[in-house]
Amino acid sequence: VIFEQVAVILVGQCQLKPDQPVFVGVSGGPDSQCLLDILFRLKYPLIIGYFNHRLRPEADGEALAVKHLAENRGLSFVSGEADVAAYARRDTLSLEEAARILRYKFLFNQAHKHHAQAVAVAHTADDQVETILMHFLRGSGLPGLRGMSYRSYISTWSESIPLVRPLLDVWKSEILIYCQENGLQPLQDLTNFDTSYYRNRLRQELIPYLESYNPAVRKAIWRTGKILSGDCQLIEGIVPQAWLVCVRKVGPGFMLFDYGSLIDQPDAMLRRIIRRAVMKLRPGLQEVDFDTVERAVAFLKSSKRTMQIDLLAGVTMQREYARLWIITSERELPSDDWPQIPTKKPILLTVPGEVELSAGWRLSAEYIDDVQSAFQQSIANEDPYLAWAAYDNLQLPLVVRARQPGERFQPLGMEETSVKLTDFMINIKMPSRLRLQWPLICGKRLDNAEESIVWVTGYRIGHSYRVTSHSQHVVLFRLVKP
Amino acid sequence: VIFEQVAVILVGQCQLKPDQPVFVGVSGGPDSQCLLDILFRLKYPLIIGYFNHRLRPEADGEALAVKHLAENRGLSFVSGEADVAAYARRDTLSLEEAARILRYKFLFNQAHKHHAQAVAVAHTADDQVETILMHFLRGSGLPGLRGMSYRSYISTWSESIPLVRPLLDVWKSEILIYCQENGLQPLQDLTNFDTSYYRNRLRQELIPYLESYNPAVRKAIWRTGKILSGDCQLIEGIVPQAWLVCVRKVGPGFMLFDYGSLIDQPDAMLRRIIRRAVMKLRPGLQEVDFDTVERAVAFLKSSKRTMQIDLLAGVTMQREYARLWIITSERELPSDDWPQIPTKKPILLTVPGEVELSAGWRLSAEYIDDVQSAFQQSIANEDPYLAWAAYDNLQLPLVVRARQPGERFQPLGMEETSVKLTDFMINIKMPSRLRLQWPLICGKRLDNAEESIVWVTGYRIGHSYRVTSHSQHVVLFRLVKP
Repeated sequence: VIFEQVAVILVGQCQLKPDQPVFVGVSGGPDSQCLLDILFRLKYPLIIGYFNHRLRPEADGEALAVKHLAENRGLSFVSGEADVAAYARRDTLSLEEAARILRYKFLFNQAHKHHAQAVAVAHTADDQVETILMHFLRGSGLPGLRGMSYRSYISTWSESIPLVRPLLDVWKSEILIYCQENGLQPLQDLTNFDTSYYRNRLRQELIPYLESYNPAVRKAIWRTGKILSGDCQLIEGIVPQAWLVCVRKVGPGFMLFDYGSLIDQPDAMLRRIIRRAVMKLRPGLQEVDFDTVERAVAFLKSSKRTMQIDLLAGVTMQREYARLWIITSERELPSDDWPQIPTKKPILLTVPGEVELSAGWRLSAEYIDDVQSAFQQSIANEDPYLAWAAYDNLQLPLVVRARQPGERFQPLGMEETSVKLTDFMINIKMPSRLRLQWPLICGKRLDNAEESIVWVTGYRIGHSYRVTSHSQHVVLFRLVKP
Repeated sequence: VIFEQVAVILVGQCQLKPDQPVFVGVSGGPDSQCLLDILFRLKYPLIIGYFNHRLRPEADGEALAVKHLAENRGLSFVSGEADVAAYARRDTLSLEEAARILRYKFLFNQAHKHHAQAVAVAHTADDQVETILMHFLRGSGLPGLRGMSYRSYISTWSESIPLVRPLLDVWKSEILIYCQENGLQPLQDLTNFDTSYYRNRLRQELIPYLESYNPAVRKAIWRTGKILSGDCQLIEGIVPQAWLVCVRKVGPGFMLFDYGSLIDQPDAMLRRIIRRAVMKLRPGLQEVDFDTVERAVAFLKSSKRTMQIDLLAGVTMQREYARLWIITSERELPSDDWPQIPTKKPILLTVPGEVELSAGWRLSAEYIDDVQSAFQQSIANEDPYLAWAAYDNLQLPLVVRARQPGERFQPLGMEETSVKLTDFMINIKMPSRLRLQWPLICGKRLDNAEESIVWVTGYRIGHSYRVTSHSQHVVLFRLVKP
């Protein structure tokens, strides 16, 4: 029965091709012997791998037994070993975790070397139930509660070779029957390194205890995983669309999102976008934990318009008004998107003329002959990169420079008074890190030789320099993107 | 602390309006007293309801105590009672289930009578954890694992008045502190009727035991509910779109889907569409259980083109080739979509002339003068409701009738032989229930006076009656939809 069932899963869910080698991790226990036997009978080209964790003296004998298993079937055999205990001590990992890391490292290294299409391991339905239960007790979302997958790419080990688990629908009890009926002689079911004290207790105490609440609790949990796996896929299917709506720019070490689009997403989607962004910035990361994600969501929903929080693994989230950055701590927020003054000294801007700013931005000035039409255009203008100014009262040439301490500005529309330039910059929501080097076009007035701001580039013309129907001389400024 | 927290939830998640009455179910225990106190302090107009289950002698005293609670605050008080034990015996329900049904019946009846905007009950975060855990042990999908909702419409009780649960984020321990700090004197925490033996054991044994695996397991499970609730909403948001893609027709007691569109949906979506269809056909149903849904999915994916299965509550699923019906057993599959012969006797069809079929369908015949153009049109024709026939060899008038036992047909394109009409009908995938009364246009040949089929309406002309470039006399048949 399970032979046919697994045969279908190998083709369907695991997507194994019949003619490319499969690297099978075999410990010699019933699960892996059953998997090996089914794959062999189905004529998949196989390479058998045994990994010696050097934790028990019997391991050498086991390696030999697995080698015989392979040889009896005429299959290639590879073994590897490592001092798991030493590794665990060095990196302060649990034995289980250290064993897992070294074993998968071995399996995937060998799989690469042998050009295998996949690494196959023998996790069973019982293992699946334990995994889901563990996630449930830990408080996991869908990705944990759906359990292990038939086929998955684990970027820590390989981007190109998937891990397949064809026995996830098969119960241990069925495997034991299969072994018996097919004359397999599995090694004693040893204390598996996968089986920490915690997992052992879960298996031997908790699950039997839960069966006193529902005798079919294993089946129930397994089924839950199955349903949630489908739900998870369904949601993952709509994430890319929402991601596209929200993301504005992706660069090395940073992602820029549109704050408004993010905040329109339901929480469940927001969580996935955040998780995905962090995983993309830190591909080595195993997971982005729930608390981090919730902190990020709360940060997004708080009313503060500029601030930042650390997420994890040196990834921070920063908001600048409508811009939401997720960015690694090695990087500064990119400012290529904005014009900045490259030097401390003022730069002359002749008319006509052009000035180079940072990152390929340019600023140009030209005379306009048709003053009446310039007046009309300046009134109708909606392009922040264009500005018309009257220079009737201005000395030429102008200068382009950064702001000065305590500088004031009389923005267009403010007839009588001026404001502090710093306040103006806050009001227009200019990101604070850009303010110090924001390019300002300034000029001296003919009448009092005092220098004042003609254009806060990209934002506002000075009130005194606005074009009116009486203006005689008009200059057109252009801020040109790279 | 919890006062502000609950105040926010009342407005946000529960969507209570400040000026419309809320019907509060109060048992007198700490949870409901806390809820009552918070609602009262927030000045919501309240009506207090107490339900006496007549299961314990103390209940009369409790009713009185709750009445005083209401009167002390100047609130309306209503009490109700029923013999829960008798009801349980009569309908062979558990005491818990019987109590629950009668209590909610009382609450919603009274809420309607008092024009309340909602019924409020005092389920806590602890109750939520128990509910989720119960669903987990039972093997539930997202709708169960997300737990109870802050606000929900339960069609069994009311379509217009929601049930709200403002305390779902508040732990029992916080409630006890609240009661103390606010001088409330809750009645002894009695053996709640909500608390069956099963739930009690879960609360007093299982959860403490799980805390030995994860001391924060309550928090973890509660959080799981929170996350899955968001995921569930996310999916529910995309169901209507998929539903629209798949559904073709909805009528009393039936829904017709396009089989191909259904089968294109991921399993997780298919499950929801099936569940939704059954719930719409049987609005009283509490839920559509997992096994039923899986049977339906398996049925859809099986390769049989025509068959049916019973789902539950007298709802069946039937496939007719590209049509997938979900239909109540009281109903026959609608055949209004197809033409049928209304009588057993043949009906004369004169040329020109028209015949009435069932359900408003009609069949007409007319002479065509321009034979050449008819020939061209008949070759190019893609409309199954139109057919041109040459009547050079035909006696008029024609007849419209149903098929006869053993009848044969020589379909257009089959030059030499004929086939059994029944086989032809199977080949063209005509639903079997429609075959017996399918309208056929028949006529007698001039040469041998034998009656044969000129047009299997909607499908195929008889080969001998095809229009060729040599045809002299041509008739155009039209099948006209209602």
